[in-house]
Amino acid sequence: MNERLTKFTEWLTEQNQDFAFIHSPSNVFYLTNFHCEPHERLLGLFVIPNHEPFLVCPGMEESQARDAGWRYDIIGYSDSEEPFDFIHQALKARGIQSPSSVSIEKSTLAYERVEKLQNLFSGLKFHSAEFGLNELRLIKDEKEIEILREAASLADFGVQTGVAALREGVTEMEVLATIEFELKKKGIREMSFSTMVLFGEKSGQPHGNPGQRKLKTGDLVLFDLGVVLNGYCSDITRTVAFGTINEKQKEIYETVLQAQNESLAISKPGTRLGDIDLAARNVISDAGYGDYFPHRIGHGIGIEVHEYPSMSEKNDSLLQKGMTYTIEPGIYLPEVGGVRIEDDVLVTENGYETLTKFPKELQIIK
Amino acid sequence: MNERLTKFTEWLTEQNQDFAFIHSPSNVFYLTNFHCEPHERLLGLFVIPNHEPFLVCPGMEESQARDAGWRYDIIGYSDSEEPFDFIHQALKARGIQSPSSVSIEKSTLAYERVEKLQNLFSGLKFHSAEFGLNELRLIKDEKEIEILREAASLADFGVQTGVAALREGVTEMEVLATIEFELKKKGIREMSFSTMVLFGEKSGQPHGNPGQRKLKTGDLVLFDLGVVLNGYCSDITRTVAFGTINEKQKEIYETVLQAQNESLAISKPGTRLGDIDLAARNVISDAGYGDYFPHRIGHGIGIEVHEYPSMSEKNDSLLQKGMTYTIEPGIYLPEVGGVRIEDDVLVTENGYETLTKFPKELQIIK
Repeated sequence: MNERLTKFTEWLTEQNQDFAFIHSPSNVFYLTNFHCEPHERLLGLFVIPNHEPFLVCPGMEESQARDAGWRYDIIGYSDSEEPFDFIHQALKARGIQSPSSVSIEKSTLAYERVEKLQNLFSGLKFHSAEFGLNELRLIKDEKEIEILREAASLADFGVQTGVAALREGVTEMEVLATIEFELKKKGIREMSFSTMVLFGEKSGQPHGNPGQRKLKTGDLVLFDLGVVLNGYCSDITRTVAFGTINEKQKEIYETVLQAQNESLAISKPGTRLGDIDLAARNVISDAGYGDYFPHRIGHGIGIEVHEYPSMSEKNDSLLQKGMTYTIEPGIYLPEVGGVRIEDDVLVTENGYETLTKFPKELQIIK
Repeated sequence: MNERLTKFTEWLTEQNQDFAFIHSPSNVFYLTNFHCEPHERLLGLFVIPNHEPFLVCPGMEESQARDAGWRYDIIGYSDSEEPFDFIHQALKARGIQSPSSVSIEKSTLAYERVEKLQNLFSGLKFHSAEFGLNELRLIKDEKEIEILREAASLADFGVQTGVAALREGVTEMEVLATIEFELKKKGIREMSFSTMVLFGEKSGQPHGNPGQRKLKTGDLVLFDLGVVLNGYCSDITRTVAFGTINEKQKEIYETVLQAQNESLAISKPGTRLGDIDLAARNVISDAGYGDYFPHRIGHGIGIEVHEYPSMSEKNDSLLQKGMTYTIEPGIYLPEVGGVRIEDDVLVTENGYETLTKFPKELQIIK
């Protein structure tokens, strides 16, 4: 077994679990290197202490699983078959007759599938597989960091492409289309979330939608985008000025930049995670804009664009080398516009590295 | 209350439900016109017979819910608050003290949230809200059909753009990028799924991935794409020939086209749904390619790109006016290439209308 699967199996043994049923594409990918988006169909990785694991997937995905290097059993099923029948048989064949505790991803496994497990085995207790998997995924290895670095560099390129496309009268959607066109030509099939390009007062909506708003001088321009590369995500936000902006706009820009710098400065092993949020939040509150920073400082990033760890101010865990997360303070003033500055951050031996590297001094685009 | 919410509330009453907790963005949108993608955060529409419904959403989405026309209570929460505390209070305030049966979307609601409900109220039984909602969503109204028609027309435009971009040596990703660029310039923010452009032998993989494969003469070219427009999806597949193709390629093209025509021909009120699959499958099997058509004939389409009804050969329900679904038979030969032809179909009073209209006679692109 690969190292990740070995560690996860050890965790299951420690937790006295009879088996784990892992269904989310991201965790299956993490544990097997097999990337599958089954939509409403079932994908399942069954991990069993003291037995070989097996995979369940739509029949037409079987060869991809083999290509990804999976060398244990695969149960492929057709649309007219009930995969839980096969699962029952496969578990029995591995000596699982009356399991008592099973690890599932409670935060994502649909209740319908829990009921199907309960129908197979009565009296089951469920344990959160996330406790084990999130801990494993929390610390990125060298290969993961290399991909994340490359994904971040493509996000930088996206912002650079967007900035180069700014001209009086262009629409948000035209700039967005240009960014994604250039990224697709570089082979990027999927953005890690719906790209944001917001002009002027629209940048003042933390969840605004790009549309046909035309660019005019004096606008703040907010870009928020990321790519999926080899199964890993990037996420960057930059805000630039189009032509001369006013003092208020400059003030919120400098406040957000200072806030981000404070959070970056304490990004190193041993820092309490919640303090990353508080460091930026204090700067913004002290400047009188606390009410205009309505979201948390960031999120873990890796196979998913939002993953563990939680970057909430309440998180008492400590930063460790190899963690990756975003730092993205913002201030959104309904009339004036908004500013957000976001980097993907890697915790290193003694501090941090920002994986995204597009400049952060206020850029005035003429 | 709007008509959809009224009908759903009536259904809950008939089913003796104490309340419904609806969390999926698509069903919340269907019932409220409020479109919200809360990611890992909680979105909840609580519908209670004999009481006003209420919405629970991240605080920063509240104003969007109002803009979408929601006029009942909204509970906005911040990232440091536990929404289930508010839900408990709000239900108690509406007289829900010890409910016995609650409707949830069993096929998508995560077990973690079911546990939270169970912690609020012991001994709860859960009922599938999908039974009611899928039936309601099954028949599209005039306004929905209008949007679906427009979304389909944009999918046609996507294929047309792709065909126009074909030239010797162009890559799959370059053609894909051009299609999405032109659609984005028309204001399309989101494709309904990851666009497929596959050349030659790659079209022979039912789940192939577009990449750097270059176009050469004699290739089949398969496009599969759709857009999201005002919350509704389209989905079209067309296969064209680039330069002269061989007899085998022509044969599978004509077989798939004939198969699709057979399924279309019986698309009218009263037809058994499973027969739509069988009509095409029989043509393909009779031609000796049964093993090379590994997926079902199609899927319902509307707010979601894959939705109810199930187009499986086992579905004994009858077609009704106002249903919309795809018909997409295919044959995939590993060495030769693949052909799939897909339309979005609306059942009308006496037959059907294809919403997608790009030509289907074999096109030879020079």
